[in-house]
Amino acid sequence: MQKKVNIEKAIRRKYPEQVVLVTTVKPNGGTNVMAVGWVAIASSEPLMFMLGIDDGAFTYELIRKNREFVVAFPHDGMAAEVLFAGSRHGHDCDKISKCGIKVSKAAKIKAPLLTDAVANFECKLVDIYRPGDCPLVIGRVIAAHENVRAGLKRLYTVAPGHKLSGVKPAIVKIKKNG
Amino acid sequence: MQKKVNIEKAIRRKYPEQVVLVTTVKPNGGTNVMAVGWVAIASSEPLMFMLGIDDGAFTYELIRKNREFVVAFPHDGMAAEVLFAGSRHGHDCDKISKCGIKVSKAAKIKAPLLTDAVANFECKLVDIYRPGDCPLVIGRVIAAHENVRAGLKRLYTVAPGHKLSGVKPAIVKIKKNG
Repeated sequence: MQKKVNIEKAIRRKYPEQVVLVTTVKPNGGTNVMAVGWVAIASSEPLMFMLGIDDGAFTYELIRKNREFVVAFPHDGMAAEVLFAGSRHGHDCDKISKCGIKVSKAAKIKAPLLTDAVANFECKLVDIYRPGDCPLVIGRVIAAHENVRAGLKRLYTVAPGHKLSGVKPAIVKIKKNG
Repeated sequence: MQKKVNIEKAIRRKYPEQVVLVTTVKPNGGTNVMAVGWVAIASSEPLMFMLGIDDGAFTYELIRKNREFVVAFPHDGMAAEVLFAGSRHGHDCDKISKCGIKVSKAAKIKAPLLTDAVANFECKLVDIYRPGDCPLVIGRVIAAHENVRAGLKRLYTVAPGHKLSGVKPAIVKIKKNG
């Protein structure tokens, strides 16, 4: 049964929410990294991602400048790195060195891959679209990489307050429908 | 370690992926329902959702006509209904009656709530945006409802082939970072 509640209350039922890390190249050649939770596939052919990145983010500034970035799926052992990347500001802090995330060379762009991620997607900026209070960055995937460890699981935000975890499928039986 | 692979292969590492059900009103006054996996929050204030809905979908036609719809989070016991809603075409089939999904009256729009869902969001169409091969429907939430059962868990797509399940958080320890 449904009960009408504040929008802010109802949206707290959204978890688990996916989280990705986004790498960009800084003016000094170093790498910046940011955690993004508002993310979805936006096109199949070609594959595109939509990322909600706030106006003040260093990543947003660097994406507009470089017009390229990497979307990485962190694994379920990277909670500390994701929390750090998502709660510190790239203008003030070299997040990559501070949290010890390993990076490796991408195939087609300058922004690096995250060596330990489940998968990495090299993206070219297609558009920035703003239907509400947040710029939505659209990236076209031009190359992809996956971790050689096949069983590696993605990290998710599992509860309010940036509570991060892996998630285990709890298989439910699908009854037959007409 | 990363290995460069086809984009189609790497994106199969995306799971669990969220899935929502979208209700719309049909010209005969009945309800249509569709499952959508390309979904993300697109704005905070006001709250907006982005939904990737393919051109041929009855839902897409009805959203353009009515300019309103409901986004519902199915619970982990609704796998059969979601699979049915996502694999049958609303033009040919009254999906609501066929799979026995219960609906109830919304507060501000004609499209109904799903009575058993984890939460329901009444949306007004803001825009349709197409960066790639899929229309992205942007809806502004104008009212929200949640299930009175607080512990109810959302359903997710947990593997390729529309394999649906609940997901159990597997809490990982966050080590301290400087």
